[in-house]
Amino acid sequence: MKIERKPSTALLPTPVVLLSVAGHGKEKDNIITLAWVGTVCSAPPMLSVAIRPSRHSHRLVDAAREFVVNIPRAGQLGKVDLAGVWSGAEHDKFAELGFTARPAKHVAAPLIDECPINIECVVRHQLDLGAHDLYLAEIVAVQYDEDVLDARGHVKTSALEPIAYVEGEYWSLGERIGSYGRAAKALKTEKK
Amino acid sequence: MKIERKPSTALLPTPVVLLSVAGHGKEKDNIITLAWVGTVCSAPPMLSVAIRPSRHSHRLVDAAREFVVNIPRAGQLGKVDLAGVWSGAEHDKFAELGFTARPAKHVAAPLIDECPINIECVVRHQLDLGAHDLYLAEIVAVQYDEDVLDARGHVKTSALEPIAYVEGEYWSLGERIGSYGRAAKALKTEKK
Repeated sequence: MKIERKPSTALLPTPVVLLSVAGHGKEKDNIITLAWVGTVCSAPPMLSVAIRPSRHSHRLVDAAREFVVNIPRAGQLGKVDLAGVWSGAEHDKFAELGFTARPAKHVAAPLIDECPINIECVVRHQLDLGAHDLYLAEIVAVQYDEDVLDARGHVKTSALEPIAYVEGEYWSLGERIGSYGRAAKALKTEKK
Repeated sequence: MKIERKPSTALLPTPVVLLSVAGHGKEKDNIITLAWVGTVCSAPPMLSVAIRPSRHSHRLVDAAREFVVNIPRAGQLGKVDLAGVWSGAEHDKFAELGFTARPAKHVAAPLIDECPINIECVVRHQLDLGAHDLYLAEIVAVQYDEDVLDARGHVKTSALEPIAYVEGEYWSLGERIGSYGRAAKALKTEKK
């Protein structure tokens, strides 16, 4: 039986990331935790981030047009949560959370050294959708911690410990249950 | 030590969903598996889906401007994988995969009855980003299987068994590791 509910942001699971952006003028570099992010194109590689106009980082992204999307580990969850709850207008999040700002290679934004994946982005489009502004950004470089890549340069997901967001809760990943194009062999054993 | 890699769709984990769309003219209703999806606004609630113009579903979405984003269970993985590999030009995916097309409440697209969450969407914006077209769609209703809601009407994540996509692999979720605004209490025990 289906139960209808009013419209809501029901998509799940979504990624949990730390967006880092350069300070504007005398303001400090800032970090904001986001779950309303997604991949939007493969060539050029692009992602979307949605930020409320009331957030301190919104103004910084508007000024800089560049940012880094850092993928944190589950072991950093306390800091990740605080970076979403705190405002950059009141907290120096890099200093207070003990994160290291490291220069990116291709954008004028710091990356978070302690995060195992750092995605350097340049804003290409911006849309006012209502409660959130949507930034569509081109990925111009990606940096990985050496220990999350295997000998062939592929990402070791289990070493990453990424965080997923589901209805206000943070979740760890469980296990690999299949690969694209090769999971269909399990079909015969599935119930309809 | 950081290793720089060329730009790629490095964001993770992303959701795995089945988009269902009405057939156009004499064509059958279709299903396509997507991982390049994301929440883009909370009010109005909106999500994005990226579809390659070469996909059969791209033309159907262009014609209908409405679709349903269905969230499958890990137990349906074989069908989910085939719905991404197969083309709707060659396969009647509802019939061949054993999925039931059920009328949606507010859009002219069928929902997949066997999926525990069905998000009814109307396209509001479309952007040609390169390899993918991006559709930004308003969520006009959400339907849930009764067994994934608790007595207060909240989603029971563990009952959902959602699928996450990471670098070409499908992953299950592991365990709840915290809640928004309440995970910071773990901060003192974390390593910098």
